[in-house]
Amino acid sequence: MSSSVNKHVLVPIGEGTEEMEAIIVIDVIRRAGAQVIVASVENSLQVKCSRGVNIIADSLIADVESQQFDLIACPGGMPGAERLRDCETLERMTIKQRDEGRLYAAICATPAVFFQAKGLMDGHRGTSHPAFSDKLVDQSLVQERVVVDGNLTTSRGPGTAFEFALSLVKQLYGAEKAQQVAGPMVMYPYEL
Amino acid sequence: MSSSVNKHVLVPIGEGTEEMEAIIVIDVIRRAGAQVIVASVENSLQVKCSRGVNIIADSLIADVESQQFDLIACPGGMPGAERLRDCETLERMTIKQRDEGRLYAAICATPAVFFQAKGLMDGHRGTSHPAFSDKLVDQSLVQERVVVDGNLTTSRGPGTAFEFALSLVKQLYGAEKAQQVAGPMVMYPYEL
Ligand SMILES: [Cu+]
Repeated sequence: MSSSVNKHVLVPIGEGTEEMEAIIVIDVIRRAGAQVIVASVENSLQVKCSRGVNIIADSLIADVESQQFDLIACPGGMPGAERLRDCETLERMTIKQRDEGRLYAAICATPAVFFQAKGLMDGHRGTSHPAFSDKLVDQSLVQERVVVDGNLTTSRGPGTAFEFALSLVKQLYGAEKAQQVAGPMVMYPYEL
Repeated sequence: MSSSVNKHVLVPIGEGTEEMEAIIVIDVIRRAGAQVIVASVENSLQVKCSRGVNIIADSLIADVESQQFDLIACPGGMPGAERLRDCETLERMTIKQRDEGRLYAAICATPAVFFQAKGLMDGHRGTSHPAFSDKLVDQSLVQERVVVDGNLTTSRGPGTAFEFALSLVKQLYGAEKAQQVAGPMVMYPYEL
């Protein structure tokens, strides 16, 4: 986990993505020094999120399909989770990510609505938003705020998004970097 | 604090605004049912935030100056806090807001960089980001994560932004509404 190596991270967004979950993941991972590409699964770079905030993505998803990412991190929100699920490019990319042993992650509705629907939870424990977590096949860790199981990380909602993002920083760069990023953000007390 | 009355909230943003602080405040307060206007203090609606996320504001600040808001809530980030401070329209609006006894609020660098510089902290206790809070004249509550003093609310950084936003919901709509909004977000444990 050399922090001198530049890490590349994909954050896909679509109509109805939860903007807090997207932005917290993008911002926190950029604070760690990673190159984060925000990619729209829609036909336009401009995406209207779940509470009406309009964000301009860096790329269309098709334009980054050939790139290799150290992490694919999917925000939640509805219908955002369905928009991500229904994007065949993102599905291919995430299955390849899983098959090649690199990190992939989802929060809120997306573990249940996208990842489980496409077999990406198979053999993995995880969690999802309380309104969706009862649909997960493996219920053993659904009460946890963040679950890391192998190369899959899942989490529950906007209120767990900082913990989710900092867990991803820790997995990419190590605990020391995660602490460095957490400090100036004035995090609430929790176990990193 | 009748929740049947529609509340109007202004969230100003500028180049280098901390996107997590802006989006958390906008999103959480919209979840409570308020009409939130995101207003750019720049010449364009599209604003590049502190970690490179491009957000499209709803209005230019000049176009909403004549409107009355129940709350003006200012995000932090640098140089975002300076961009808000240097906007004369926003300065006039916030001074009027204070003088007429309505709610105004700032987080992160903004209490020190904007509010104190323009006299908006005078006679008020508050806090600011740890890198700026030693500059506040009144040091009595700077260690607090959120300070409500009269109609002024201040807070410290991205990691306190949910608490800040939910405190504003509580002040606008009451504690019950704040609890209703907090629940589905899967908040970390803290005293609302
Ligand atoms: Cu969500």
